[in-house]
Amino acid sequence: MQKLTVNDLNPAVLNVQYAVRGELAIKAEDLRNKLEAGHELPFKRVINSNIGNPQQKGLDQPPLTFTRQVAALMEYPPLVDLVKGVWPSDVVDRARELHEVIGSVGAYSHSKGVPYIRKNVAKFIEERDGYPSDPEDIFLTGGASAGVSLLLNVLITPHETGILIPIPQYPLYTATLAQFNGVPLPYHLSEPDGWSTSLHEIEAAIEEGKKNGTKPRALVIINPGNPTGSLLDLETMESVVRLCEKHSLVLLADEVYQFNLHSPDTHPFYSFKYVVRKLDSPIQLVSFHSISKGVKGECGRRGGYFECANFDEDVKAILYKMVSVGLCPPLSGQIGVDSMVRPPAPGTPSYPLYKQETDAIHSALAQRTKLMAQRLNSLPGVSCVQSPGALYLYPKLELPQGAVEAAKKLGKTPDTLYALELLDETGICVVPGSGFGQKEGEAHYRLTCLCPGVEEYVGALEEFHKKFVARYGGL
Amino acid sequence: MQKLTVNDLNPAVLNVQYAVRGELAIKAEDLRNKLEAGHELPFKRVINSNIGNPQQKGLDQPPLTFTRQVAALMEYPPLVDLVKGVWPSDVVDRARELHEVIGSVGAYSHSKGVPYIRKNVAKFIEERDGYPSDPEDIFLTGGASAGVSLLLNVLITPHETGILIPIPQYPLYTATLAQFNGVPLPYHLSEPDGWSTSLHEIEAAIEEGKKNGTKPRALVIINPGNPTGSLLDLETMESVVRLCEKHSLVLLADEVYQFNLHSPDTHPFYSFKYVVRKLDSPIQLVSFHSISKGVKGECGRRGGYFECANFDEDVKAILYKMVSVGLCPPLSGQIGVDSMVRPPAPGTPSYPLYKQETDAIHSALAQRTKLMAQRLNSLPGVSCVQSPGALYLYPKLELPQGAVEAAKKLGKTPDTLYALELLDETGICVVPGSGFGQKEGEAHYRLTCLCPGVEEYVGALEEFHKKFVARYGGL
Repeated sequence: MQKLTVNDLNPAVLNVQYAVRGELAIKAEDLRNKLEAGHELPFKRVINSNIGNPQQKGLDQPPLTFTRQVAALMEYPPLVDLVKGVWPSDVVDRARELHEVIGSVGAYSHSKGVPYIRKNVAKFIEERDGYPSDPEDIFLTGGASAGVSLLLNVLITPHETGILIPIPQYPLYTATLAQFNGVPLPYHLSEPDGWSTSLHEIEAAIEEGKKNGTKPRALVIINPGNPTGSLLDLETMESVVRLCEKHSLVLLADEVYQFNLHSPDTHPFYSFKYVVRKLDSPIQLVSFHSISKGVKGECGRRGGYFECANFDEDVKAILYKMVSVGLCPPLSGQIGVDSMVRPPAPGTPSYPLYKQETDAIHSALAQRTKLMAQRLNSLPGVSCVQSPGALYLYPKLELPQGAVEAAKKLGKTPDTLYALELLDETGICVVPGSGFGQKEGEAHYRLTCLCPGVEEYVGALEEFHKKFVARYGGL
Repeated sequence: MQKLTVNDLNPAVLNVQYAVRGELAIKAEDLRNKLEAGHELPFKRVINSNIGNPQQKGLDQPPLTFTRQVAALMEYPPLVDLVKGVWPSDVVDRARELHEVIGSVGAYSHSKGVPYIRKNVAKFIEERDGYPSDPEDIFLTGGASAGVSLLLNVLITPHETGILIPIPQYPLYTATLAQFNGVPLPYHLSEPDGWSTSLHEIEAAIEEGKKNGTKPRALVIINPGNPTGSLLDLETMESVVRLCEKHSLVLLADEVYQFNLHSPDTHPFYSFKYVVRKLDSPIQLVSFHSISKGVKGECGRRGGYFECANFDEDVKAILYKMVSVGLCPPLSGQIGVDSMVRPPAPGTPSYPLYKQETDAIHSALAQRTKLMAQRLNSLPGVSCVQSPGALYLYPKLELPQGAVEAAKKLGKTPDTLYALELLDETGICVVPGSGFGQKEGEAHYRLTCLCPGVEEYVGALEEFHKKFVARYGGL
């Protein structure tokens, strides 16, 4: 018999690249295993700054108490006898209400998610935007990634459909495009203007695609930005919607960081749903949200939703059919979505602790982000756009010629060399800019602004950077 | 602007069919909504016998206490202070152990699943089969469906790869083949021999595929069978493995019902992993398992795993890359897998209740399956193979000529007409045989052997059947 080898596999799958959990992450895993096995390394622990995973060991952002108490009661409803009078009464009430509606969390739900939770999501959206939302337009998902994958699978006719994606981008998009044989139509964000979105760049990418026989079908916008941490202003958002009208593009709005705002007074978040309704635009919009980020950080539950606006009923029926094949999103994620969109309200017993917990998370993230950007900017050859949202910084590196040449010899990009040596020497795992996209000849890396102790973390980054520059002959 | 319509979508997606949650299930949903809104219907409740969902409302198979107490503690570790001395000590110990290893269930895990849980799965497999299992060969998944979808996506090169599937089959397979542009190579199971698997049929399907230029790549076996409830004997399994050697086929063994055995003394389950190792065969095998069925019935958690045997390292690396894009399976499902493979052992505090709960589930299912098959067999025009495993029966219907003609006028298959009228008159939702596949001109339906009260349920099926036959002019 002939054994199946990698050459026999689906070529589209072979083309998929996903740097966030790629070479660097695999090396970080090896190093962690070595530490656990007692090996001597130049650091005491590996810090996975390659991924926005707030509750990971070592970072330990605490989960919100309300969310978890409700979830524990849903797992084991007879627990109520033990916690009554001990836990806040609104926790017990909320769990009882959800249990009456849902029944067991061990049962499949409706494939689009529990109807009652979708109603609560619609109410949340209505309150956020001031415009109506229909629960039938809402699909609960196992995280935002599952929703993005579904939409791209449905929208892409292989080899002819173009999807406009920002550069730099979260590599889920290029990975999923490769998987489904879609054509990426990259448009560059402008780093000198704080990673702003330029309509001119998008128009140019559309033209370029058409020239190559590609049909532009959808535009991806990540707002707040990943990896850039930038935030769109209303005026740009309105122009984006008009551009989608002009070119008949479906707008895929990745809005998973909408709660991660570091200076909401000067840099507020507007949803694309709000803009589309405000302009009374007929464009077809899909907006993605998640419980993995924000103040919840409940990545492991796998929960999220997307809302489609202005979609034909029969297109929504196809989406419903496709989610049916996967049966339903995890109930633990669905319940997580419910407590995200219905957090404790002022005046309820759980509110004071909720307020304290979420304030602490917001302010720690805002302070760390600001401090890290300042300190990175003061390093030779590093420039870093200050970020008003999301969880990341995406500093630009000017690297010594010696490093560029050394990388070339290894068949790696210079930023990969930098990231590999950073990991080897400090245990900090970041993702090289080549995984997100950047202009030819540039070097960046993405790091999360989640860390155990910011002094130790930034100190290690600084010390490494200086050594690296010196080792390769200086700037 | 031009709006996106269904005609613009990926044609492969449009071709996907999934009857388990198709026309019948959507109609059942409408009827349930009508009942809730106070409409008068000929029945008091809708029973979703279209899907193996033991814990759904109305069926209410209770979750296993051990599983849920551990899960509640993982959701909210400080709960230990309240339950210590109240819940069994092994629950507290297990949750503490898992918490030490995993940390928060709100963090992403390793993309293949928590390494410690994969080790426990490997131990379970070793004990089950008496042959070694490597944790690195195990991928935890969000239910078995997610694993099947991944494997088919990776194995199929569009339009040329053939996958051998049993007829009747669980429609996940045809749905996923359509999604990824694979070619189904159907082989018929033999109903007169208790839905046995015939090597001759598989060989014929391979020849037929080759004639049409299709490359047969993998063979799907569902054991215990869905929808048939049949069980393979060792001799057949050995021949299947030899056939895979001969034709260089990857064997995809869907073994999610391995715990659902109604007469394990006379009809035991053997895993294909056991057979492959016993024969020392080099074939590449993927075996799928799930927490949704068996005595757990934890569908809503979305948990399962697959084990690959004899796979090249670089093929496994591609699988790892692909699961990385989806980040990780839900932690609630992973923890569910852990308690499935490490249930309370005899002598532990949780064991007596665990034994009582699982015995009750096993015996109720076995009794119901036997009784339902007997009663269905005594109906005019109905014949039903007795089932030694899984959750289903797949009775064959001889229908009146009048019904065949009436269905034709409606553009439906006769079994769809039968299922629609059954739903309208009794509230029982089953899936017509056309959704699973059957021989030309035949009619079947699949129903689950999960029901609230077996007398009421079977009584309703019997009464409906007699009326239906009479209404369409008799047999």
